[in-house]
Amino acid sequence: MNTSTLFQALDQQRIETPSWGYGNSGTRFKTFTSAGAARDVYEKIEDAAEVHRLTGIAPSVALHIPWDEVADYSELRRFAEGRGVALGAINPNVFQDDAYKLGSIAHPDAGVRAQAVDHLLDCVAIMKQTGSRDLSLWFADGTNYAGQDDLRARKRRVREALAQVHDALPEGSRMLVEYKLFEPAFYATDLFDWGAAYAHCLAIGEKAQVLVDLGHHAQSVNIEQIVAFLLDEGRLGGFHFNARRYADDDLIVGTTNPFELFCIYAELVAAQRSEDDLTRSTAQNTAYMIDQSHNIEPKVEAMVQSVLNCQDAYAKSLLIDRERLAAAQQTGDVLEAHRTLTDAFRTDVRPLLADWRRARGLPEDPIATHRASGYQQGAARKRGTASAGGGFPVKS
Amino acid sequence: MNTSTLFQALDQQRIETPSWGYGNSGTRFKTFTSAGAARDVYEKIEDAAEVHRLTGIAPSVALHIPWDEVADYSELRRFAEGRGVALGAINPNVFQDDAYKLGSIAHPDAGVRAQAVDHLLDCVAIMKQTGSRDLSLWFADGTNYAGQDDLRARKRRVREALAQVHDALPEGSRMLVEYKLFEPAFYATDLFDWGAAYAHCLAIGEKAQVLVDLGHHAQSVNIEQIVAFLLDEGRLGGFHFNARRYADDDLIVGTTNPFELFCIYAELVAAQRSEDDLTRSTAQNTAYMIDQSHNIEPKVEAMVQSVLNCQDAYAKSLLIDRERLAAAQQTGDVLEAHRTLTDAFRTDVRPLLADWRRARGLPEDPIATHRASGYQQGAARKRGTASAGGGFPVKS
Amino acid sequence: MNTSTLFQALDQQRIETPSWGYGNSGTRFKTFTSAGAARDVYEKIEDAAEVHRLTGIAPSVALHIPWDEVADYSELRRFAEGRGVALGAINPNVFQDDAYKLGSIAHPDAGVRAQAVDHLLDCVAIMKQTGSRDLSLWFADGTNYAGQDDLRARKRRVREALAQVHDALPEGSRMLVEYKLFEPAFYATDLFDWGAAYAHCLAIGEKAQVLVDLGHHAQSVNIEQIVAFLLDEGRLGGFHFNARRYADDDLIVGTTNPFELFCIYAELVAAQRSEDDLTRSTAQNTAYMIDQSHNIEPKVEAMVQSVLNCQDAYAKSLLIDRERLAAAQQTGDVLEAHRTLTDAFRTDVRPLLADWRRARGLPEDPIATHRASGYQQGAARKRGTASAGGGFPVKS
Amino acid sequence: MNTSTLFQALDQQRIETPSWGYGNSGTRFKTFTSAGAARDVYEKIEDAAEVHRLTGIAPSVALHIPWDEVADYSELRRFAEGRGVALGAINPNVFQDDAYKLGSIAHPDAGVRAQAVDHLLDCVAIMKQTGSRDLSLWFADGTNYAGQDDLRARKRRVREALAQVHDALPEGSRMLVEYKLFEPAFYATDLFDWGAAYAHCLAIGEKAQVLVDLGHHAQSVNIEQIVAFLLDEGRLGGFHFNARRYADDDLIVGTTNPFELFCIYAELVAAQRSEDDLTRSTAQNTAYMIDQSHNIEPKVEAMVQSVLNCQDAYAKSLLIDRERLAAAQQTGDVLEAHRTLTDAFRTDVRPLLADWRRARGLPEDPIATHRASGYQQGAARKRGTASAGGGFPVKS
Repeated sequence: MNTSTLFQALDQQRIETPSWGYGNSGTRFKTFTSAGAARDVYEKIEDAAEVHRLTGIAPSVALHIPWDEVADYSELRRFAEGRGVALGAINPNVFQDDAYKLGSIAHPDAGVRAQAVDHLLDCVAIMKQTGSRDLSLWFADGTNYAGQDDLRARKRRVREALAQVHDALPEGSRMLVEYKLFEPAFYATDLFDWGAAYAHCLAIGEKAQVLVDLGHHAQSVNIEQIVAFLLDEGRLGGFHFNARRYADDDLIVGTTNPFELFCIYAELVAAQRSEDDLTRSTAQNTAYMIDQSHNIEPKVEAMVQSVLNCQDAYAKSLLIDRERLAAAQQTGDVLEAHRTLTDAFRTDVRPLLADWRRARGLPEDPIATHRASGYQQGAARKRGTASAGGGFPVKS
Repeated sequence: MNTSTLFQALDQQRIETPSWGYGNSGTRFKTFTSAGAARDVYEKIEDAAEVHRLTGIAPSVALHIPWDEVADYSELRRFAEGRGVALGAINPNVFQDDAYKLGSIAHPDAGVRAQAVDHLLDCVAIMKQTGSRDLSLWFADGTNYAGQDDLRARKRRVREALAQVHDALPEGSRMLVEYKLFEPAFYATDLFDWGAAYAHCLAIGEKAQVLVDLGHHAQSVNIEQIVAFLLDEGRLGGFHFNARRYADDDLIVGTTNPFELFCIYAELVAAQRSEDDLTRSTAQNTAYMIDQSHNIEPKVEAMVQSVLNCQDAYAKSLLIDRERLAAAQQTGDVLEAHRTLTDAFRTDVRPLLADWRRARGLPEDPIATHRASGYQQGAARKRGTASAGGGFPVKS
Repeated sequence: MNTSTLFQALDQQRIETPSWGYGNSGTRFKTFTSAGAARDVYEKIEDAAEVHRLTGIAPSVALHIPWDEVADYSELRRFAEGRGVALGAINPNVFQDDAYKLGSIAHPDAGVRAQAVDHLLDCVAIMKQTGSRDLSLWFADGTNYAGQDDLRARKRRVREALAQVHDALPEGSRMLVEYKLFEPAFYATDLFDWGAAYAHCLAIGEKAQVLVDLGHHAQSVNIEQIVAFLLDEGRLGGFHFNARRYADDDLIVGTTNPFELFCIYAELVAAQRSEDDLTRSTAQNTAYMIDQSHNIEPKVEAMVQSVLNCQDAYAKSLLIDRERLAAAQQTGDVLEAHRTLTDAFRTDVRPLLADWRRARGLPEDPIATHRASGYQQGAARKRGTASAGGGFPVKS
Repeated sequence: MNTSTLFQALDQQRIETPSWGYGNSGTRFKTFTSAGAARDVYEKIEDAAEVHRLTGIAPSVALHIPWDEVADYSELRRFAEGRGVALGAINPNVFQDDAYKLGSIAHPDAGVRAQAVDHLLDCVAIMKQTGSRDLSLWFADGTNYAGQDDLRARKRRVREALAQVHDALPEGSRMLVEYKLFEPAFYATDLFDWGAAYAHCLAIGEKAQVLVDLGHHAQSVNIEQIVAFLLDEGRLGGFHFNARRYADDDLIVGTTNPFELFCIYAELVAAQRSEDDLTRSTAQNTAYMIDQSHNIEPKVEAMVQSVLNCQDAYAKSLLIDRERLAAAQQTGDVLEAHRTLTDAFRTDVRPLLADWRRARGLPEDPIATHRASGYQQGAARKRGTASAGGGFPVKS
């Protein structure tokens, strides 16, 4: 692949950053606040715009409702566009209202389920104002103890609610169904793995696609294989990128096993070039979104690093010698095939990416530019540091 | 539930034992041989018949081809029936021929794939002679290194081969598609989880059902939830029962977490009584099969223990107060619902089961009866002890 | 074992409940508040006293400083004693002050380390007033990213701080050093496993013992073996009891794998009768403490259930036929030895425990008594329901 | 670091390859034999010599007794030296004799324990002839079922046996005590983790050190932290290098998470330069050994790749800017510290290593040279392909 083709491929990468990644977050034990962390959706959009200015490949920001609720979403859209970013996926919240203690769309009580579905439908309405293509659905629903609720009944409630939302989606839009092994539920999570999400999507219709969050699998699960499987079935909708070693650690993507991130991108790039129409179009429509908790890091710098780590993995995956790979695979030359992959991974793509940035009028070293810019210090002066702390105990 | 109803429910339980559970087995490091271990399919059937005589609920024995290959399967069937057991599921072997080093039905070479499919079709032909309903399919196919083969291409090869076999199945028979997280493949296994098996079954037809082996999941996966999900989708075909703590340990079922086995049976018993026709018929047709490696235990005693552990879990699950459970679930009484389950689990069903055995003319204490019978000593005298040992190194 | 001996053994069981188990708690996503949850240390002590009245084996309550901070600990002690319970282990908090973002006793900054040690020494002073024997130490210290800090340097800082505290402990008291695989740190936790805690204890002195929290291990780790190892080395100090399937789920002890809890008690009971003086005295001095988060359950009922689950496991472990077990172990009769254990586990000890409670003037069915007593409703009336919710986002 | 210093550091790296890595190996299901796989210890030494010729950093070969048993070890030593390699660690085998079904040094029977200790002492005698410094001890000892044997008694038997061997070691030699989470034991492994191995080493004496096998940990355990801890305690003895995703997969080191291997080397290089004498001397004496099963790969090529992967990780770890790292760590600049590490990891060291090889008279591309050399084809012609296959069933 020559430089011009590589640059064109690099131009096409898109990473969506999440509004909530710019605010304070923490673990159940404590939220350590950061100086200058964004206090509202406008400041979050400003931070997202800064990340896009620095990287050139983060042109949209995901919203979370009601955390980012405003009176006029058309005005919010103009605000964002004025700063150079678009509004991205809408993320409903059906896990923090007091009603949801035992679930939302899987709750045994029909009234609670209706409340949850109403909120999801409200978010569909918001999508129309924000110009969002994707409704990104994560449910905390689950149970903590064997017997606590009927697993099959809960499954059917989930199916019914998802179908309602699906049928309300406007043409051209999609719902992304996220799955998660556990947390906050500790016995059974209703959407517990990709198979469960996939079965629901298949049953409810074409607009339903599976969302893969890199932190939501059991130990040792091969994520790139799930990605490949869903691509081949035409049901991969998007990603929540982050990194983990233990549970849903929500660290900066690519920090615990950069080779895994590379292998995931290797599948995506291969699918984008597939001769199979469904696989190719699925890969081309996949949404790439960050979903992380920056508990101890400066928020904007952490997000820039995240975007760069995705770019690094993507660039390396572009360098895979696909012909050499296919030949080794076909002849069963195990080590040569593996080396073809690792040769691309071992390549230092930092010079290539610096060239691309220079050619595109972007800062060659986004991190250094950000640190030198005074952006963070300015935010700290303007926004201050939150005094609240979170974590146990909550006084009753 | 009164005693008579309980006894009728107990009468209906069936556990199929595997022929290979009566022969020597081991780990990759060593096969420690046992005195009296069965040497051929006839001795295996004799052992299976002994297990059924002792327990009354193990009336069939699964075969593995070619380990149990004979010239005349009709004669073998008569041999088994003469000893009081039927021939059960047929288990093809596409993982030990030298051709299968890099896979069988997913192999990059079409010739190897054809060899594998031919063997599977041969096994379909055997089913007709043995009177078996189920073709039980486990594939060792997978890769050890990232890049070794094309994951999507392998998936398509698997789909194609499964479809061929599916369409050759006689009316009324089924193929059970087993999945496994890993081993012997250590990077990616082609049928890696229930979702992959389910997607294939859905695509190829009604006779394809998913087989759940209790030892084939990632750490912490909730198996009873997968069981519930598959029951509700009408795609649970059967079980390979065993126990594990670490990997596919293939220990005696119920020995590492008896509460988990109980929870699985609780889902099955609930489904057998479901008002939903598909769920109920799926539960009623589920095949319950042991699949274990008795590396250090006496083979027949280990199998009797396995069958009894299943009976214990099933009996306890019959005792769940379903009305109390449903009421607590509906009102969100978390702890009361959980206690309803655990009250059944805490019940000592040994007296009940002794009563049932006495009423059915079975030995009250099958283990004690077996140990007192001299069966094992007789087998040791007649069959001797293998001298071979297995394990590394294999001399070239 | 005859009934009288069993009753005497049952009399000796002690479970300490934690003050924080009576207040609201939650996950990082949300704290769902409970009606009547205790609002301060006095209400927590009242709840603990209720648990002890109902069960008879929960005579002390652990405190957490500063959550339970009061001006006069002698007065608090009298308050507790007036309600029939003693003050138990003191749990310092060096993870919620803003200074501890990057650690406490392992922090790179000496000033932060000194602040943490000062707090620990304050807690030693509190122990003298509360009459507590044990200082129970859990540290959230760790790092989220490879390279974030120097692992060996952090280890040395931990050693130094622990030694300072150790040397300040009054005669007859102990420090219990807890370990945890992860959370809130996601790359490396400074006290990451029992081996790390053990090595530190060994180095700093006789008053330092290891605390085993059942939820703090990697998947599949055999906890009863760690318990046995520490007992034999004379370094088991105590337990934090809870249950988990995935991470540090902090569920009610005994709910995910009751057989595991039984196996742990089986080791403890065996050690209490050991002929080895060190092992025996270690077992006899072991502290049994609950540490759970009751996120969706009524607090007091959940705690009663927890204590009863421990009693159930302990009672069953008393029933193990030790002679039969030893004989089977010595002769290598694998299945007979295992059955000896499971025969005790399968026994329904509820009648025995009801008898014991009746004989001791306790309610035969503590849960039913509690639910009928109106205690929870009274607390709800008196204490109300907290309005705060916790979870993301924390406004800056 | 300038090139000359880097070259000197690269000169010091040593990787020992294992004789058994050149013979056929497999999983419990099947051993697929390789054309030209070594048939005896002489051929294994020839293969090891080829790996050293190609890489320049694999100057010794570990032996396994009795797999590599010969009448005259002095002659074997001369044979090896004549081919340019030394004999390395001696690995006793106490897991394949029929007597070891229920254990070796932890066996309940004193006679079996004595047999095992005798073999270990025989191996000590062999060390003197082979000139080996290290006795490398792995025990398969463990149990498959709760209650099968007394965990504390087994621990004491292990301690006693290890102490006997320790005291027989000649001056200047060491015993490396390996631990393993599981396999072939599936309930409890007697030497189950680093803490257990460490406690034994500490108790028995200065010549006992812990051996870290990269595949022997529970999921998600941070291995570099264990390495750092043992280095700081002066008890790290050596490594068994390999890679894994699931269990003890024994794949080529560095293939599943190359960043992890880099982090481990980063700790080792830091310790080699430590100002602490004990840490530094421990790091300098650490033994680096491969321990893998090349089930589907060509043996010699797989071993060359393994050695090169270690070299790659080591070279990158030499490039870490230690001053920048220390400064960022001290000031709590989380992301800058992490980037300092990843900047070294992202560097493509292949040109540097090619330069070093050229300068040292080694082939610039060892894999290409090996593939072009005809070595493998020659071995296949001379040695043939084993017909034996291994795996189940073993005929009795």
